[in-house]
Amino acid sequence: MNLNKPIRITAVGKFLPKKVLSNDLEKKFNIPIGWSHKNSGVKQRHWTNNETVGFMGAKAAQSALDNSNSHIKEIDLLISAGASFDHIIPNQASVIKSQIKNAEQYNFPAIDLNTTCLSFLTAFQYAANVMNEHTKKVLIVSSEVSSKHLNEDNWETITLFGDAAAAVIVEYDNNNESYLIKSEHRTYTNGVDLTKIEGGGIKKPFKFHPYDKNIHSFQMKGKNLLKLANIELPIFLDEFFKNTGYKIKNVDKIIPHQASKLGLLLFKKMYSLSNEVVIETLYKYGNCIAASIPLTFIDAIEDQRIKRGDICLLSGTSAGFSIGSLLIKY
Amino acid sequence: MNLNKPIRITAVGKFLPKKVLSNDLEKKFNIPIGWSHKNSGVKQRHWTNNETVGFMGAKAAQSALDNSNSHIKEIDLLISAGASFDHIIPNQASVIKSQIKNAEQYNFPAIDLNTTCLSFLTAFQYAANVMNEHTKKVLIVSSEVSSKHLNEDNWETITLFGDAAAAVIVEYDNNNESYLIKSEHRTYTNGVDLTKIEGGGIKKPFKFHPYDKNIHSFQMKGKNLLKLANIELPIFLDEFFKNTGYKIKNVDKIIPHQASKLGLLLFKKMYSLSNEVVIETLYKYGNCIAASIPLTFIDAIEDQRIKRGDICLLSGTSAGFSIGSLLIKY
Repeated sequence: MNLNKPIRITAVGKFLPKKVLSNDLEKKFNIPIGWSHKNSGVKQRHWTNNETVGFMGAKAAQSALDNSNSHIKEIDLLISAGASFDHIIPNQASVIKSQIKNAEQYNFPAIDLNTTCLSFLTAFQYAANVMNEHTKKVLIVSSEVSSKHLNEDNWETITLFGDAAAAVIVEYDNNNESYLIKSEHRTYTNGVDLTKIEGGGIKKPFKFHPYDKNIHSFQMKGKNLLKLANIELPIFLDEFFKNTGYKIKNVDKIIPHQASKLGLLLFKKMYSLSNEVVIETLYKYGNCIAASIPLTFIDAIEDQRIKRGDICLLSGTSAGFSIGSLLIKY
Repeated sequence: MNLNKPIRITAVGKFLPKKVLSNDLEKKFNIPIGWSHKNSGVKQRHWTNNETVGFMGAKAAQSALDNSNSHIKEIDLLISAGASFDHIIPNQASVIKSQIKNAEQYNFPAIDLNTTCLSFLTAFQYAANVMNEHTKKVLIVSSEVSSKHLNEDNWETITLFGDAAAAVIVEYDNNNESYLIKSEHRTYTNGVDLTKIEGGGIKKPFKFHPYDKNIHSFQMKGKNLLKLANIELPIFLDEFFKNTGYKIKNVDKIIPHQASKLGLLLFKKMYSLSNEVVIETLYKYGNCIAASIPLTFIDAIEDQRIKRGDICLLSGTSAGFSIGSLLIKY
């Protein structure tokens, strides 16, 4: 609950790896041509070659800085908001910071926030809460590489995910023209096992568990996830909108996490939402974990589907299992 | 900068793995007996067998809940504050939450904050900032397993690190008896390469880089770290105390990160601080990454070296390279 906290997105930037895979992905993995678009809703996606999380994040951040009137020295805080990391130590924000031009001259803090696919929402809410006369400009970067954690035998996941980075500069809005109306995040522990990269951590340390695509790849129980989301999402959203003065039917734009084709379809159907209101990028970027929501938001800002003053709902689900939403006046 | 934000630690809990290694560690790895205490300052440390980050974190959290008047249903937010994780996905807080008794009945959010060794300070500051009439009780858990990432050929690190979990419940303090006087965190990018677990992330994915103790173990350039800390720490602390009404010489207790024997010695020498003021647990727990500061704090609370009303400085350095401090009235 954060009613009307002044916060304004003043600049945005994105970075997409050069390599674009469309039907060539299907050819590569012996998947019938057209399967991906039909089943996953993804026509094409960008995948890294050697681009790292830090490299992509710094590129997106640089683009946001270049699009703004801000110099890097004005940044008060850098948040890396996502699930991907280049190294186990140090944290990802420090790595991103080290790759932003001239950032080494300024000692603003670099912190990581991770709620997997909802990380950008968590970071935005955090920024709104810490902003004051001392912390005025926050750089939020969601840089995600999913492609290194996919199992080519699992068509559902290999066709779904993409790599991307998105960055926004948010500022304390003295004029109170832009603000966070409300944020909410709930974690439903009964869904903790539905979405997983099992290995690579302390439960199955790499030292004792050599690479095995079954252990070290992303796995999801798609049907169970949809079932859980279909039960909890309407309850969540009903309560979310209470006392806000808004309803889901009268917000200007909705930016959902680009989780899956079926997830987006069911969400639109649940509230009879039109394609003009709900912004989608799944078909061209795939599911980019935490980068999906800001990337989709940025796309809509860039092509002016979202305009200043619009009431926007950013909403999604994440591994854990969590549901999160932000309602903002852009 | 967070002058006098009401926040009160109302309960604490810790968990230490059963296995304690003292001289037996040196025997196991053919290190001369006594080398660890002499060089690393560590007489003994706890190491996990199969205990996971989630298991330890949930145990510490349960202990804090048992020591409090709080029921799990009153918790508004769970923060996992640390660098260790059981799985790459989902986030660690969701895993910890799923292992706390009855937590599955309540949908409070579970989020991860990672600034490596400073994560607890970042989480405490975050909690102080988000607390209001809706978010009144926050459970912060720092659960760290370092022992699976150590290289037995590197005596400096194999003798230094321990495994542990610490948890605190912090509450909005209506009476304003306990508060956060100030927090500050700075990231010095010129130190980004001084502390690392290089592999296991996107830079060198498991898929293409089989286990290699040189790549997948914790590495630090101890001398360079101390050099950087010796330059930046006094500048940081001088500026930190400005306008607080306090000086480092007149705080009641100092809880430093238990980074290393030499680091602690140099810090005490820098400000001529006594062993009564500076709390140390390095000798018995080792460096437990983000768990070190709360664990040391909890030890001092439990044996009444820290009392209600004490002005406490929590301070340390972390990979990245960062320096962070909190000044609180306990």
